[in-house]
Amino acid sequence: MNRFHILTLFTQQVEYYFKHSILKRAIENKIISVDAIDMRDYAVNEYGKVDDTLYGGGTGMLIQCQPVFDAYNSIALNSSTGEKPYVVYMSPKGSLFDQKKAKELSKRKDLVIICGHYEGIDDRVISTIVDEQISIGDYVLTGGEVAACVIVDSISRMIPNVLPNEEAYMNESHMNDTLEHLQYTKPEVWKGKRVPQVLLSGDFAKIDEFNKTVALCETWSKRPDMLEKKALSTEEWQKMLEYKKSI
Amino acid sequence: MNRFHILTLFTQQVEYYFKHSILKRAIENKIISVDAIDMRDYAVNEYGKVDDTLYGGGTGMLIQCQPVFDAYNSIALNSSTGEKPYVVYMSPKGSLFDQKKAKELSKRKDLVIICGHYEGIDDRVISTIVDEQISIGDYVLTGGEVAACVIVDSISRMIPNVLPNEEAYMNESHMNDTLEHLQYTKPEVWKGKRVPQVLLSGDFAKIDEFNKTVALCETWSKRPDMLEKKALSTEEWQKMLEYKKSI
Repeated sequence: MNRFHILTLFTQQVEYYFKHSILKRAIENKIISVDAIDMRDYAVNEYGKVDDTLYGGGTGMLIQCQPVFDAYNSIALNSSTGEKPYVVYMSPKGSLFDQKKAKELSKRKDLVIICGHYEGIDDRVISTIVDEQISIGDYVLTGGEVAACVIVDSISRMIPNVLPNEEAYMNESHMNDTLEHLQYTKPEVWKGKRVPQVLLSGDFAKIDEFNKTVALCETWSKRPDMLEKKALSTEEWQKMLEYKKSI
Repeated sequence: MNRFHILTLFTQQVEYYFKHSILKRAIENKIISVDAIDMRDYAVNEYGKVDDTLYGGGTGMLIQCQPVFDAYNSIALNSSTGEKPYVVYMSPKGSLFDQKKAKELSKRKDLVIICGHYEGIDDRVISTIVDEQISIGDYVLTGGEVAACVIVDSISRMIPNVLPNEEAYMNESHMNDTLEHLQYTKPEVWKGKRVPQVLLSGDFAKIDEFNKTVALCETWSKRPDMLEKKALSTEEWQKMLEYKKSI
């Protein structure tokens, strides 16, 4: 079982998300577990206050070292493997999360995810316990909770038996350095727009070839930066040109 | 008021998130509104089924054109401004969301956000109504709902009066092409780690200079790609070297 331990001040946000997500079944089947730990339970004063003003001035409040450290210790001392759990901190300063990182983190049995809030967390506890700072993108959020949900979702679906069908993620965007091809369902004609005829042909070799070409064209028009990593053959370019002409 | 209209199959996930977020107050004060519209209410059959199998084969189900189109129309025909609402589709194939895009979208009065699920949505309705496809990062999620929460959170905090203090987002990561400096709160010494003395000096010009140098050093070590856009002065390099030596 892969265990996700989320250290947060907003446990409800995190818990609710997974109760109403596609991952619910994987949790019920004990393939993964997601626990939200309230850092306020580890407050060092009687009021449950875990934040204080910034040294050197500035707006906002910062979460103190000790509650974060103690909340982390409550997990580390009960680790299922006896090993130190891997600790990530959600932060706009982190390295960018991607599909490769999701795959890598899916191999960690105990993953602790710390969510900042307000102005963040005192840097001294970060440098003491955190193995890696992770950002889900070059933008800022009101808190790390939704970012934690993003990475747990993305990591979990790489774990065997979490998704109903493991094949489902083999052909999707970002798995083969291309975006996914275009997809169509019933009806065959909608507002005068017809599904490409080859998809109705039943010739699966031809369909596969067509979808690969469409995937390359999609990547070329939407994310040319992704194609820089790939060396396309003359034949592939030829097919892309033909497809472009046909639409 | 900025209105966010989220088209989804999982309305509860989205609604709950904003009820338990820092944005709750902005919703209560009618600065923003967040509505989740269930595409199943616009199913074209009596069972509330909105998805069907893929043309050309393949695993999974695809959401059909008509329910998406009708759900969108329910908003477009009641637009508060009389203008066509701006429509984004959350997709790993989209252009990457960033702080600049958050600022840009914060100026749209009516923003429709479509969340895919299962294998996604029939491409014909996307090419008919969607203005822009947006991805929150180079990774895949089980659905677009959490991605929609991410962009609404990030966009909302750029809207005046949504955050308690507008200053709060002026010095943060990604606003000035640098990451934020390190931050500390009480106690002054934690596990032998002392807060940098200059932050206790009360000399705000000195503190400001120190924090700027730390911000540059943080960016240099964690995201050197961000510094490529900036031309640093010899003096700035000198200060960064001095700081590096001092820690």
